[in-house]
Amino acid sequence: MTTPTDSPTTTAPAQPEDAARAAAAAAPVLADLSPSTRADALRAVADSLGAHDDELVGLAAGETRLAEARLRGELKRTRVQLRLFARVVESGAYLDVRLDAADPDFVLGPRPDLRRTLWPVGPVLVFAASNFPFAFSVPGGDTAAALAAGCPVIVKAHPGHPALSRRVADLMVEALAGAGLPAGTFALVEGDDAGRALLAHPAVRAAAFTGSTRVGRLLADAAAARPDPIPFFGELGSLNPVLVTPDAFAERGAEIARAWVGSVSGSAGQLCTKPGFLLVPEGHGLGPVVADAAAAVPEHALLNARVGVGYVAGRSVVLGTPGVAVLAAGSAETEDDGVVHATPTLVETDLATLRAHRDTVLEEVFGPFAVLVTYPEDTDLGAVVAELFPGELTATVHRGAGEGAQLAGLLATLGRHAGRVLVDGWPTGVAVTPAMQHGGPWPATTSDATSVGTAAIGRFLRGTTYQDAPQDALPAPLQDGNPWGVPQARSGVGESAHW
Amino acid sequence: MTTPTDSPTTTAPAQPEDAARAAAAAAPVLADLSPSTRADALRAVADSLGAHDDELVGLAAGETRLAEARLRGELKRTRVQLRLFARVVESGAYLDVRLDAADPDFVLGPRPDLRRTLWPVGPVLVFAASNFPFAFSVPGGDTAAALAAGCPVIVKAHPGHPALSRRVADLMVEALAGAGLPAGTFALVEGDDAGRALLAHPAVRAAAFTGSTRVGRLLADAAAARPDPIPFFGELGSLNPVLVTPDAFAERGAEIARAWVGSVSGSAGQLCTKPGFLLVPEGHGLGPVVADAAAAVPEHALLNARVGVGYVAGRSVVLGTPGVAVLAAGSAETEDDGVVHATPTLVETDLATLRAHRDTVLEEVFGPFAVLVTYPEDTDLGAVVAELFPGELTATVHRGAGEGAQLAGLLATLGRHAGRVLVDGWPTGVAVTPAMQHGGPWPATTSDATSVGTAAIGRFLRGTTYQDAPQDALPAPLQDGNPWGVPQARSGVGESAHW
Repeated sequence: MTTPTDSPTTTAPAQPEDAARAAAAAAPVLADLSPSTRADALRAVADSLGAHDDELVGLAAGETRLAEARLRGELKRTRVQLRLFARVVESGAYLDVRLDAADPDFVLGPRPDLRRTLWPVGPVLVFAASNFPFAFSVPGGDTAAALAAGCPVIVKAHPGHPALSRRVADLMVEALAGAGLPAGTFALVEGDDAGRALLAHPAVRAAAFTGSTRVGRLLADAAAARPDPIPFFGELGSLNPVLVTPDAFAERGAEIARAWVGSVSGSAGQLCTKPGFLLVPEGHGLGPVVADAAAAVPEHALLNARVGVGYVAGRSVVLGTPGVAVLAAGSAETEDDGVVHATPTLVETDLATLRAHRDTVLEEVFGPFAVLVTYPEDTDLGAVVAELFPGELTATVHRGAGEGAQLAGLLATLGRHAGRVLVDGWPTGVAVTPAMQHGGPWPATTSDATSVGTAAIGRFLRGTTYQDAPQDALPAPLQDGNPWGVPQARSGVGESAHW
Repeated sequence: MTTPTDSPTTTAPAQPEDAARAAAAAAPVLADLSPSTRADALRAVADSLGAHDDELVGLAAGETRLAEARLRGELKRTRVQLRLFARVVESGAYLDVRLDAADPDFVLGPRPDLRRTLWPVGPVLVFAASNFPFAFSVPGGDTAAALAAGCPVIVKAHPGHPALSRRVADLMVEALAGAGLPAGTFALVEGDDAGRALLAHPAVRAAAFTGSTRVGRLLADAAAARPDPIPFFGELGSLNPVLVTPDAFAERGAEIARAWVGSVSGSAGQLCTKPGFLLVPEGHGLGPVVADAAAAVPEHALLNARVGVGYVAGRSVVLGTPGVAVLAAGSAETEDDGVVHATPTLVETDLATLRAHRDTVLEEVFGPFAVLVTYPEDTDLGAVVAELFPGELTATVHRGAGEGAQLAGLLATLGRHAGRVLVDGWPTGVAVTPAMQHGGPWPATTSDATSVGTAAIGRFLRGTTYQDAPQDALPAPLQDGNPWGVPQARSGVGESAHW
């Protein structure tokens, strides 16, 4: 007889087939639960995470080497995110309910009674990330959005923090059950084989992923190659260019450079929104400022051995590329346990080198590494982004005090190539709010959706219309009596005759 | 020197590379045009189609063999659709604008000013269908939705109606230019090679298709296999089961059977919403009713030789399957020009045969062919749909007069397997309204989107967020001054501290 590995109450991980079968059984039950029940369940998870914060932060710190303050902030963000989605569920606006009453005078002839709502797609498979052990892992944004949508969730744990993942999964299973959600609403599985098996499983109706472009592409291709293709929402890599206009450089070039090094170094640069490329005018003279700022950053252990191997290799490739000069050499030492300890490495190059070495220098190096790029006077910065940074999570402009309306064209161009366009800021903070967009054109993401903010719920819904159905057999949000109290948009009747 | 084939003013078809380059150049201009300009352009297209209705209907009748009344109705529907999307554009609600003002008291720390809008994805490639030469072809629903979204459109013409396609394209180019839209907003290309080349072209940012499951899957796979995958919205095949409850059968079985034959025979069954399977209780005795109703339907020429070949082959396969009995033999004669003339063929089988011969009997036969399926007493009809009809555009229930609330479970199940669930109706009419959903789980469609109704615009938009951008450099719908007058949803400031 075997015993669970870490505690007598451990239920995670599950077997993939068991998890899929249970999720499929839970899906219709969960879809019909009232918004308040689902919202309360999200809050119960948030509360449970909060009640165990010291234990969870301790587990996370031990497994990820991230600083305690960062982890406490991340756990708080994760809890807030769950509570924010609880509010989204309660509001009901995300269902986009549309009621077209029967219209005998419709311009194309009598129109039936039509009622459309968005409805959960069914079980969702979430691939957890390593760099946010809470916010993009087991209880993270994808999980919160899918549960809020009314979908059962199966998380494929990231191997970088297994003990934390299991403990959180246990707490979630307990909290969800306590809130009255059906068994099968949530499960954790481990291992690449389990992930692959579930991505191919008929019960799984959508998948979400946060991680590398290479792995994301493999999984996206597998989702598309199923006998029944399913939507795959991958948040992959991003270079996050920051454009410093000549005016901004003249006004506060050194200040921007220092802040850039700080943004690159936070969490040892292990963020998908790290501003990996800073574009400044030729002849900037910022080398000493960058070197000094980098020298002030303490050494930081990278998340795990796999991240370390990737960092050492990617950094070496760029450093070995002709046309790349070192501003701050930094360090990247591999310890006996395989973990890499690093200080920031900053390099400088020019647009010609980027064009000549796209495959090496224009690749994301995940860790405390970034590239300062010089541009000649009169460069069209929008054209540079369109050419070299066509698909980004973020793009940023630092402007001069007098620059306003004349930036409209540049910001419009950036909006075509990035999900979020910032002015005079740094992209590493990603607010969890209604107006956030965390997702841009390929290769930033595999879809046009966002994985952060309340709009992320839309990924796990599909439209369903009922035509001439009796009131008492309709799903709750489509009934005239509106028992869930959701916003119902009603079309005008008779007016189409006057179009 | 060559001259255009059909008239001196013909500009269509275009070369794929020219069309792609022009569309890419038009995209940013089109995105920034005011809603009223874009709406007026859609109305100008509708007006031009109307001004040439006799000519266009004549061309369509000659090339598709569809009846004039049907074609006039379809042209009207196409014009109404363009005008409906003009209203959608003017309302601005489809942009889902969200404004989160800067919030110093946000629960996770000071929050920047964030403004999110949906924005056109860029050039859209539309593959036209054969069976709706107006409504799902050159000026059809996909084109209208993409233009409304602000995307340039390149239509790959269906070879079934080339002269009509070229004429409509010329009228559209003229009308759009006259309304002030940029050159490159619209183009027509011809041939499978052109379609494939454009589906792989970097300038094309999304594609839409209406047609067979086989071709749709090939194109979906090609879109997913690009170096930069793009969204592909394919509306493929559907079996559209109709469930007749025992009560409904007892009350009006013969009436339902007659209406079914009528719905199957309209437009010679060449509709994606043809109710291909009618499920009735065993011992129904409807054979004579079905045979009589079928005998009253006049012969109809199918759309073109390719459709005819598929019809003859598919019909033969089902007729040759053990366990399938003939209710109305119908005819399917291939004329010298390759066109098939047909009268309806109706067959009967049972659930066991469907299960045993899924690959043959459970395939869509495009044309005036349908299957009556008997079910034993006490059959769980929802379970039958889940098993045998898992992904449909529509599913229909005919109920008894006393059946209401007890159908809730069945309708919920149908909603998981079909985009539209009907009660006591026939699926072949697809209203163009806000609440329509024309798209269901695979294989009905390759995505969870709708291709009919105003929600179809969402397929060609992606989220973009601006952070701390100056007012005068923001896209119009995100400005506080709101020059486009769109709905702007503002988040509360300060309230998050009390969550």
